[in-house]
Amino acid sequence: MAIKIFVTGGTFDKEYDEIKGILFFNKTHLSEVLKIGRCKLKVDIKTLMMKDSLEMTNEDRKIILENCKKTKEDKILITHGTDAMVETAKMLANSIKDKTIVLTGAMVPYKFGSSDGIFNLGSSLAFVQTLPHGVYIAMNGKYFCWNNIRKNKETGVFEERG
Amino acid sequence: MAIKIFVTGGTFDKEYDEIKGILFFNKTHLSEVLKIGRCKLKVDIKTLMMKDSLEMTNEDRKIILENCKKTKEDKILITHGTDAMVETAKMLANSIKDKTIVLTGAMVPYKFGSSDGIFNLGSSLAFVQTLPHGVYIAMNGKYFCWNNIRKNKETGVFEERG
Amino acid sequence: MAIKIFVTGGTFDKEYDEIKGILFFNKTHLSEVLKIGRCKLKVDIKTLMMKDSLEMTNEDRKIILENCKKTKEDKILITHGTDAMVETAKMLANSIKDKTIVLTGAMVPYKFGSSDGIFNLGSSLAFVQTLPHGVYIAMNGKYFCWNNIRKNKETGVFEERG
Amino acid sequence: MAIKIFVTGGTFDKEYDEIKGILFFNKTHLSEVLKIGRCKLKVDIKTLMMKDSLEMTNEDRKIILENCKKTKEDKILITHGTDAMVETAKMLANSIKDKTIVLTGAMVPYKFGSSDGIFNLGSSLAFVQTLPHGVYIAMNGKYFCWNNIRKNKETGVFEERG
Repeated sequence: MAIKIFVTGGTFDKEYDEIKGILFFNKTHLSEVLKIGRCKLKVDIKTLMMKDSLEMTNEDRKIILENCKKTKEDKILITHGTDAMVETAKMLANSIKDKTIVLTGAMVPYKFGSSDGIFNLGSSLAFVQTLPHGVYIAMNGKYFCWNNIRKNKETGVFEERG
Repeated sequence: MAIKIFVTGGTFDKEYDEIKGILFFNKTHLSEVLKIGRCKLKVDIKTLMMKDSLEMTNEDRKIILENCKKTKEDKILITHGTDAMVETAKMLANSIKDKTIVLTGAMVPYKFGSSDGIFNLGSSLAFVQTLPHGVYIAMNGKYFCWNNIRKNKETGVFEERG
Repeated sequence: MAIKIFVTGGTFDKEYDEIKGILFFNKTHLSEVLKIGRCKLKVDIKTLMMKDSLEMTNEDRKIILENCKKTKEDKILITHGTDAMVETAKMLANSIKDKTIVLTGAMVPYKFGSSDGIFNLGSSLAFVQTLPHGVYIAMNGKYFCWNNIRKNKETGVFEERG
Repeated sequence: MAIKIFVTGGTFDKEYDEIKGILFFNKTHLSEVLKIGRCKLKVDIKTLMMKDSLEMTNEDRKIILENCKKTKEDKILITHGTDAMVETAKMLANSIKDKTIVLTGAMVPYKFGSSDGIFNLGSSLAFVQTLPHGVYIAMNGKYFCWNNIRKNKETGVFEERG
């Protein structure tokens, strides 16, 4: 069975608007990154939204939840902004027990060079294949259970809450 | 405990000699790639050799085997040329039963842009953390048991032998 | 005699702050870009400021003017934000008649990949060596006299005023 | 009138064959590089051959010469392997007096990242617009007359013969 990938936006997919000199969302680069990774996994990519996670509403999270619930695949990868990734993970964990869901993102946009996005995509696709049912966040080469993680806002690094 | 990384060369670490116009090995780019991936795993990198896997001798494989045996870590990642990766995996599997060993590599040198190396490093570091003891090859987003894989020389893609 | 390069900021040198998710100035990448270009010209680089050209004050422009006046080299390259590049060129042209001054910049930061910065640096260094005394803007592979150019704010392209 | 660009191959356009692990020629990347440079010059690109300059025959050089002669544009840029660039320049200079011809190339393939190709393309397009009739080589940010240059095979740098 394929791995389901839900795209929600986040730094991973941001681009630079050279006319306005600002960062913006166009469309996802997931397929491009998978191609560079020579990834041969069967994946099914669906874009749910293109948002900064700080701007995600409860309504947005409901859309993510409903899509995770109704999809037939039990291995789900979600690309997500890092700032509010933990909130979404928590919400999903409260409702879904019979699937492996991994959230990942990036500190630097894929299009900017030297992004961690392709590394994180590699590790999160591996984690979603091997971890038992549950909701996880995969960043910095590690995986974390949804209820034992925080993003250190000063370093940008995800840590166990200890 | 740290993840042990043994570097043996392969396409991953090849560079372009701009004076001679040929590909060559200098030193490994593993640390640079881990930094780009914002990897925060505890890793211990040791370069065993810098070779094309097609040029690896039995003597070279013994060096790899001895290092895998004597290292105290039970999670080992080996970067390796793809052409003869399966042979090394088989040799290791015959002798080592109590560790998780993942071999990975790249189809395109890391230094050339659009390399699969950083993606493979992400996925193989995830696999080595989550798979049970055994010897595996991680390429194309997938993992394979050492005794059920071949590299398709025409497509460059790793496949189950079926 | 060396070519004098004055750095004033602009998109060329912007970087991405991965903690705050914003664009910012750190230090110039001129030397790095010249190294990638295998440039062997004798150049002398001096950073005057690191600013968006939209934020440049009359005081800033006086600093640029004074530095252009007092430097002994008669070939001067200035990296500059594109939005107000024409204003600075005009101010310089009113006072300096005995030097070749070329202003250039970039639509996309050098650090973001696929930047026009390295191309523009190549062409502007060539123009400054070959054009007669005067003040010019070099963008999009072309050179323009300071009094016959405008930046099209909708396309980001520099055009003759016709 | 447009600038004529003749493509002849050279390191600039080499690519990496990830199946065979060797360098090869596919098609030229000139248009792609001009697009990244946001170049708005009117250019007319024609591929004459895709060759290492060390493998160029007298027959190949005759093809280049005939094309330079018969093209109506008097500004011509030629991308060329660096090893035998001087020989081609000399041959062209012996026959063509009424055009500005600039030969350029790269030390590192454009596709490998950190190539000097885009910088050289920027400078050579500027030189071809501004230099008087004659045959020139543009490398390392400099231009050289065809009869006063050699490539230092040890450093890869072009130098005046002094």
